[in-house]
Amino acid sequence: MALTHYPVVNKNGDIITSAVTNLDLHDMARAGKTYGVRAFYVVTPLEDQKTLIKRIVSHWVSGMGAKYNPKRREALELICTRDSLEEVIDHIGLENENLPKTVVTCAREVPGRIGFKKFRKMLKQGDPYLLVFGTAWGLSDDCISKADYVLDPIKGNSDYNHLSVRSAASIILDRLLGGNLFGSNGE
Amino acid sequence: MALTHYPVVNKNGDIITSAVTNLDLHDMARAGKTYGVRAFYVVTPLEDQKTLIKRIVSHWVSGMGAKYNPKRREALELICTRDSLEEVIDHIGLENENLPKTVVTCAREVPGRIGFKKFRKMLKQGDPYLLVFGTAWGLSDDCISKADYVLDPIKGNSDYNHLSVRSAASIILDRLLGGNLFGSNGE
Repeated sequence: MALTHYPVVNKNGDIITSAVTNLDLHDMARAGKTYGVRAFYVVTPLEDQKTLIKRIVSHWVSGMGAKYNPKRREALELICTRDSLEEVIDHIGLENENLPKTVVTCAREVPGRIGFKKFRKMLKQGDPYLLVFGTAWGLSDDCISKADYVLDPIKGNSDYNHLSVRSAASIILDRLLGGNLFGSNGE
Repeated sequence: MALTHYPVVNKNGDIITSAVTNLDLHDMARAGKTYGVRAFYVVTPLEDQKTLIKRIVSHWVSGMGAKYNPKRREALELICTRDSLEEVIDHIGLENENLPKTVVTCAREVPGRIGFKKFRKMLKQGDPYLLVFGTAWGLSDDCISKADYVLDPIKGNSDYNHLSVRSAASIILDRLLGGNLFGSNGE
């Protein structure tokens, strides 16, 4: 999966590069590890932000944090930093026979989108997929239109549709990859 | 639902009062609003922490933040601060015919726990329930044993069992209250 800081939009719809949020890295790496995600790409073209990501990751993977909390190390080891989604796709292509299909997430109901059940079945076929999350007010329209698939938005049971990317990613991974949706003693 | 900062345990199993994390308030309030939760109680007995919570909430509910992002206001309005879970239970009792039953969350497989499917059905009966989350390394054993019910732990599809409380709360609300688990075009 990938967390994208460019190209995303701000509240006015302008394309921006957002700042990295420490807890996005922790929460999404931990959720990714829980649900067996192969790698967690953090995408930003900004040098200072890449330096920040490396400082955070190295603290937990090889620094003091690794000793203090080895479980956090296991999760943050999933993180790879890349300048763009194109670089992520190329990197995945090097490790697989085929380039991955891209599946972007979006809080809006984009025409032609696919549902969770369908994508869950597609994932079981074994082909590589890249699941893309946006920061700020979401991925740019251009980024969404270039993707192979757009995933259904999450619906709760209200009209409120403003989850954090950390919450959305956790719920989406659970819906797509949760081993047993209703727990071990579901009755 | 409630997020508890006391009594919780640290990594050595000692009972502590944990510090409030800003993004716990935001992410859990936004998830609570998405899934129609009635109130989000943040529990801490510490005066300085209660002051911090009030500063954060008032910024987004009545301060600059409310203008900048009204959707954030709608979510953070769910937050009530209380000194203890007992106070939370009393407060809910004042607004309902009966005291709420307490359902605590725990990453371990506690004997006699209930599954998501069962609790989902119980919630549909309309009786009040208080869903309790712990911070740090989780709720104290005493707190867990005093609850009416313990909910199944979340299983992903790996042995890794270390989600953030923000992720766990989001996934649990989706499993318990998600309107349509597989989206609007589930095929």
